[in-house]
Formats: sequence, C-alpha cells, structure tokens
Amino acid sequence: MAEVKLLGKWPCPYVLRARVALQLKKVEYEYLEEELGGKSELLLKSNPVHKKIPVLIHRGRPLCESLIIVQYIDEAWLAAPGLLPASTHDRAFHRFWAAYFDDKLSPLLTRLRNGERGRANEEAAEGVKLLEEAFVRLSEGKGFFGGDEIGYLDITIGCHLGWIRVTERLMGFKLIEEAKVPALAGWAERFCAHEAVQGIMPETEKLMEIFQLAQIHMKRSKR
Amino acid sequence: MAEVKLLGKWPCPYVLRARVALQLKKVEYEYLEEELGGKSELLLKSNPVHKKIPVLIHRGRPLCESLIIVQYIDEAWLAAPGLLPASTHDRAFHRFWAAYFDDKLSPLLTRLRNGERGRANEEAAEGVKLLEEAFVRLSEGKGFFGGDEIGYLDITIGCHLGWIRVTERLMGFKLIEEAKVPALAGWAERFCAHEAVQGIMPETEKLMEIFQLAQIHMKRSKR
Repeated sequence: MAEVKLLGKWPCPYVLRARVALQLKKVEYEYLEEELGGKSELLLKSNPVHKKIPVLIHRGRPLCESLIIVQYIDEAWLAAPGLLPASTHDRAFHRFWAAYFDDKLSPLLTRLRNGERGRANEEAAEGVKLLEEAFVRLSEGKGFFGGDEIGYLDITIGCHLGWIRVTERLMGFKLIEEAKVPALAGWAERFCAHEAVQGIMPETEKLMEIFQLAQIHMKRSKR
Repeated sequence: MAEVKLLGKWPCPYVLRARVALQLKKVEYEYLEEELGGKSELLLKSNPVHKKIPVLIHRGRPLCESLIIVQYIDEAWLAAPGLLPASTHDRAFHRFWAAYFDDKLSPLLTRLRNGERGRANEEAAEGVKLLEEAFVRLSEGKGFFGGDEIGYLDITIGCHLGWIRVTERLMGFKLIEEAKVPALAGWAERFCAHEAVQGIMPETEKLMEIFQLAQIHMKRSKR
C-alpha cells in the first residue's frame, strides 16, 4: 500500500490544490481518480462527515478539506519550499486572502457561471481588483504571492484558474485581464506554466464540456 | 498607544474567541467596545474588506477573521499553552472540526434561532452527536478537546455556548444535554467555568434581550 494516497476527480479545483502542494514538496503519491458522479467505498469510509473529495490518506489515516490538507502537507513534509510564509504576520495575511477567495469570490464565480449577471459582474470585478492590490503588497515585486516560489495563497487561488477561464468564456469578457489587473494577469500565466502545475491543470475546453454536461443534467432533473 | 488592541462587541462569539485566546496567553490588551449597530472609523479603516469585528491590532497592524486571529495569537505569543496541538495530524483534525462547526453547525443554529424547525432540529442533533464523538476521540479522557488545557477547537466551539443556550431556550429543549451527549455536556460546563472564560462569557439573559431587540428591528425594517 502506498504511504500517500489522494482521492480526487480531475475537474475539481480543490483536489488540484492538494496535488500541486504534493508536487511542490516532491512527495510521491498514488492518485485515485473517483468516478465522476459517483463516490467510492473508500471515499465514504474516509470522509464520512462530508463524503467529499479531496481526501489525503497518509499512512492509512484520512485527512479532508483542501486547505487543511495543504497546511498538513506543509507541516508534515518540512523540506523546502515552505508553503506558508515564515513571518507570523504574513501567514495571517495569506490565510485572510485565502478565506476571502473561498468565502466571497469563489461563490460569486459559481453564481456567474450559473447565469447571474448585473451586480454580480461588478462584485467579481471589484474582488479581482482587491486581489490585484493584495498581490502587489504581498509579492513585493516577486513572481508569486508567496515570493519567489508558489505558496499557500498561490495554490488556493491559482487552482481555480481553469474554472475562472470557463466563467470568463460564459460571461464573454475577461476578469483577469492585462489591461485591468496587470500584476494578477502576469501571476496567472506564471502559475499555469509552473512545472508543479502544468501537467495537471485541466484544459479549459474539457472543463467547458463538463460544465455543459452538468447543466443539461441539472435541467433534466428539475423537470 | 497600547501594543495590542481588540475591536469588538460584547455579544459577538467571534470576538470572544480572540479574547479567550489572549487571556489564555496572558497577553495584556486594550479592549475597544464598538457601539452596537455602529462601526467606528478605526474599524472601517482596519478591516476595509469585510468591515467586521473582531479586529486585532498588534503594533499598529490590523488582523481580521476570528480563527485567523486565534492562530496568529498562538504563533505570535509562543509561551504555553499552545492553542493548536503539537502533532501535525491532530492539528489537521482540530482544524477540520473547527471548520465543521463554522461551516455547518453554526449556520444551522442561526436558522433554528430564526424559527426554522423540522429537519433542521434533527440535523442540529446529529451535528452535536458528531461533536460528542469527536470530543471523545480527541480529548483522550482529558477535560478539553485540546487535552488538559483549552485549545483552538475548544475556543472555536466554546465561545458559541452562550448563543447555543439562547437557541435551546427558543427551541424549548436542550441540544447539549447530559443524557444525550454526556462528554460534551461536561466539557461545556468546564469551558464556561474556566478562568480565561468566566468573566467575559456573556450571560444568556442578556443575549436573549439582544436577540429579541434584533428581531423587533428586523420586523420593523421589513414593513
């Protein structure tokens, strides 16, 4: 049995967070792809409370919730790079913006994908602008939120870039655009081109297909 | 100017989290009570993104979000007691149950206070049962989730006990009851009697008053 296993589904940005963290730390792991639309016995047994991916199984013990898994990976494999900043104050700030993304911006992107417009458009543009300002402040002229290397906050936001692109296509305009948020646009390109991300970030085309299939499925089940 | 300031409102369980953490670490701080229903200039300036309490200001630098503040306090004042467990695995588990409380159980309690019944009753009872099981596993026969002393998870859940009691009164029955969840009932008593909590946990009577005032206010503004 592999020492480290990860249960996931390829379109899931939360699973991608765990994968990128493991790649950055150069941890060998067995990736177990769950069937889309299904839940394996192992998943139900490993995450009985939420029954959700990702689940990281380390030495037979399961861990759940993507950002808790990323922090666990950072603490369990101490080899560089550190994913959270060394300074107590910076750690709090990275956690703050990660929570902002998950609690505010990510639900907003979901609403936009589901067809909501008007005020939601503006709110998303304002949110992205706030991230641009946060990036300029936290990166201090370096390539990533975490400095020279991808860190906790880069992973948190960056792993959603595939779905952000899907959202942009559906809306017909770009949220992360050079002209409006130049620092964030550069960061997004660097993140996707990083060797820990490149091979596992799902293609926008494929995410679009998955999204459209899910929409059809939802409409049918509403009838 | 005091080195540590905390902006809060007395009925707020999230503010209480920061206060209990500061008390446990024996950090001297200036507590600045915000007006109920208002937001001071200092608050708006210190938390421009969410404009919410609590805000901890340490050496002039503001920090927001209660659980991020508690972790910051744990990391910035290293003197015992440690609020998060020493073991990487246990830390992940404490974070998991803290997120469970904030994301699942706490919104459910709010719905119950606002009059929802039926399935919400059952869900809350199931949630409390899960916490009972988690307590038995994590405390290993000791008095608190964190062992012999109050820790991160105790603070997360315990600071809501005042509002849980308000919810119980409104529902007409107890959620945390000796007969149903004996370990959790004992823990709740110990938590409220702890010297770091005793003087600052708001009385249930006063929270009831605040709740009823807020309800009247809501009904009026709906007219």
